Amino acid sequence: MTITVQMVLERLTGPVGRLDPTVDTLKSGRMDAEVRKVAVVFMATYAIIKQAVESGADLIITHEPTYYNHTDEGAWLSGNAVYERKRALIEESGVAIFRLHDYVHSYKPDGILTGMLKKLEWEAYSDPAEINLLTPPSSERHTVRSIASHMKSRLGIESMLIAGDPDLPVRRFGLMPGASGGRRHIEFLESRDIDLLIVGETNEWETNEYVRDAADMGLAKALIITGHQKSEEAGMLTVVEMLREAFPELQIAFMESTLAVQRI
Amino acid sequence: MTITVQMVLERLTGPVGRLDPTVDTLKSGRMDAEVRKVAVVFMATYAIIKQAVESGADLIITHEPTYYNHTDEGAWLSGNAVYERKRALIEESGVAIFRLHDYVHSYKPDGILTGMLKKLEWEAYSDPAEINLLTPPSSERHTVRSIASHMKSRLGIESMLIAGDPDLPVRRFGLMPGASGGRRHIEFLESRDIDLLIVGETNEWETNEYVRDAADMGLAKALIITGHQKSEEAGMLTVVEMLREAFPELQIAFMESTLAVQRI
Repeated sequence: MTITVQMVLERLTGPVGRLDPTVDTLKSGRMDAEVRKVAVVFMATYAIIKQAVESGADLIITHEPTYYNHTDEGAWLSGNAVYERKRALIEESGVAIFRLHDYVHSYKPDGILTGMLKKLEWEAYSDPAEINLLTPPSSERHTVRSIASHMKSRLGIESMLIAGDPDLPVRRFGLMPGASGGRRHIEFLESRDIDLLIVGETNEWETNEYVRDAADMGLAKALIITGHQKSEEAGMLTVVEMLREAFPELQIAFMESTLAVQRI
Repeated sequence: MTITVQMVLERLTGPVGRLDPTVDTLKSGRMDAEVRKVAVVFMATYAIIKQAVESGADLIITHEPTYYNHTDEGAWLSGNAVYERKRALIEESGVAIFRLHDYVHSYKPDGILTGMLKKLEWEAYSDPAEINLLTPPSSERHTVRSIASHMKSRLGIESMLIAGDPDLPVRRFGLMPGASGGRRHIEFLESRDIDLLIVGETNEWETNEYVRDAADMGLAKALIITGHQKSEEAGMLTVVEMLREAFPELQIAFMESTLAVQRI
């Protein structure tokens, strides 16, 4: 049986139904094109697209945008050297690119979260009613530092940012991958009885300053910021597993990226 | 002569005229209150407000918000323990807090930029028509790494993030303190003939990924991200100087903060 782009996308969006509006659109390629190999990635970078195409992928499923803005708006980038070169690579290759962001976050439970909990071996900590609320058994002793250290080793992170006391004991904590925004971070931290919130990315003047103030008031609150990519990338393994199960005859490759930035 | 909050604010907003809308409002205190001491800060944190009040300041001029969001909206924070405790400190002390963000950026030239150029000893590099476009004399040899190293020492930064090649030669570069947003970053980088853009803060999926792609295409483009606070804090020295000149009888204290986050 020929498998098409459309059939793959129906499998990935089906659990949610139709979202409208959504940023999850086909960025390139055709719905009726045949698929033999799928590359699942966090971000459709120039290097990853090249690597995927050279390895024979005809469909790329990316969590984040292709063109440096949330809606992949291209008009303001028209004529931009980097944009035009990336677009030329994509068009000449014929590869189909689909963004899977809103749908995977709308799975019940959130597909990125379940993938991250699995990778972090935190599934047993997770509250069934609210899976990003994590409570280790009372026999275990955790601090902000020990949790950061565990995340570094499981996710391959060199260093991360924290606000608050690194040696604060942690009885219960929250996990919000990605960049949910200051208000959602602050409301979660305030409304749940947690010592620590772990996020991917913040606006510095929002979450960071809230937790700095809380710690300066002597409240037992801390924040870990892992970086956006490392907070969600392994979550896309949920998609890899779904596709392998639904389409055993397809090649499904999970392609990780280096980080966009390095620390000097 | 009695100096009031209103007189100080007239001096600071006068060069611009009336902005509407603006986030630059009196967050606490009264316009007709007498001022004897002004504290000039980057961010009105809980610790800085305490320190300012204890040192006798009756007016705080802050570049960034007091309540963890750009417009200092308080309704959604009502009942929040950190918010209520900060508000109580402010109200009990009677200190006046004014945000000076839009006005100082609207000075001709931008007051934060002129303060940063002075602190960085880059005034001579600056293009008179566009002061954040910087061209060292051709006799000087610079790289991304050497510029980062100079910034670390002048601004007291431990480490910073870069995209692109740290050893890229830099003939001309741009300086955009704060968080101007991906589109403005990308358009500046593309439309000026620069090798390097220096910014305070980014959204990771925007500027970072654009420069990563550019570098992976072999283009001579690099990015330095210093962190938001260090990219603007010394710029507030412009305000300190203005106030000292206009009100020699007032005490004007510049109060720097530690960073909200640390790296582990």
